[in-house]
Amino acid sequence: MSAAGKGKRRRGPRQDAVDTRGAILQAAGARFAERGYDGTRLRDVAADAGVDVALVSYFFGSKDGLFAAAMALTVNPAALVDELMQDGTAELGERLLRRFLGLWDGPAGSPFVALVRSAAGHEHAAALLRGFVERELLGRLAAAIDAPQPELRAALAGSQLVGVIMARYVVRVAPIATADAETLVRAIGPTLQRYLTGDLELAG
Amino acid sequence: MSAAGKGKRRRGPRQDAVDTRGAILQAAGARFAERGYDGTRLRDVAADAGVDVALVSYFFGSKDGLFAAAMALTVNPAALVDELMQDGTAELGERLLRRFLGLWDGPAGSPFVALVRSAAGHEHAAALLRGFVERELLGRLAAAIDAPQPELRAALAGSQLVGVIMARYVVRVAPIATADAETLVRAIGPTLQRYLTGDLELAG
Repeated sequence: MSAAGKGKRRRGPRQDAVDTRGAILQAAGARFAERGYDGTRLRDVAADAGVDVALVSYFFGSKDGLFAAAMALTVNPAALVDELMQDGTAELGERLLRRFLGLWDGPAGSPFVALVRSAAGHEHAAALLRGFVERELLGRLAAAIDAPQPELRAALAGSQLVGVIMARYVVRVAPIATADAETLVRAIGPTLQRYLTGDLELAG
Repeated sequence: MSAAGKGKRRRGPRQDAVDTRGAILQAAGARFAERGYDGTRLRDVAADAGVDVALVSYFFGSKDGLFAAAMALTVNPAALVDELMQDGTAELGERLLRRFLGLWDGPAGSPFVALVRSAAGHEHAAALLRGFVERELLGRLAAAIDAPQPELRAALAGSQLVGVIMARYVVRVAPIATADAETLVRAIGPTLQRYLTGDLELAG
């Protein structure tokens, strides 16, 4: 936590805190990815990040807090939803899936796959993931939808997205795992579009 | 393995083997559900079933074999697909989901939820689940579909079903977890119908 020489005047200690926090999060992401929720200890994360374990507690409080922060690091749902809604709801389903696959197919995706795996395999981590998905992703998506039952619509879209994650990245079922992204966008985009803006026959 | 008195003449020892195998599978399902793939030991399954561990190896070979058999016990995909296809492809999506939710919402569902959780949290168990899903469920479904790219169609339907499983049973995202089954059948059935029989815009 000692202030580094350069940039010290403008935002020295604060920048140091940002760097330290980032280093801890990076180490945490790698540990959760490799060892799962149960197998990750705060002191190992601290050692990987080269800081005292007290600093991990200072920034994140607990392993729960660290896990939640590691999930939030890999995606920024607020920015994602804002970006998607800028262009309205036309072809929202295809745009959502294209953006989504772009993220997950890339190098940023693998830690998140590991976090999902960790959450699926552990009741407590699942509760943390549920809270994150409901509040940060589905809540924001629902708020941006102008149609009846927005929460159900967002959750239906979420269920299809989760299914793609499981099939493409976690369980890796062929041919979902091997299909090119645009094939999936054409096949699955209309599903998401209907869930978000179409007729769900809910009155039936 | 001593032959029981009644029914001995017709199928005595063989029936005993069926009972023993069944008892082991039941014990295995409970153990995998409670402890996951890693936390389940053959000797504990044997103890729970009241048999020697050598018998577990005799019937199932290894923990892999036991896990695969436990998965197959909870659902019989061949019978399920045959039953669904008897009525052709009209409203197949809705019928598939209704049948599926009926199974999983019931008491038979909970061991399978645990197996999916076990598989999601463990690379090796995921490979076993993948093999089972691809071969036993998607393969049979694909064989029954009379449309271009049947494997991709079956896998797309599978991705939506897996997403519902994750959202409703594993991560339990509201409101998918709390919706009544028929609401989900109306909302998601058309998705499955399109994946299985509709226009996927794959040529585009």
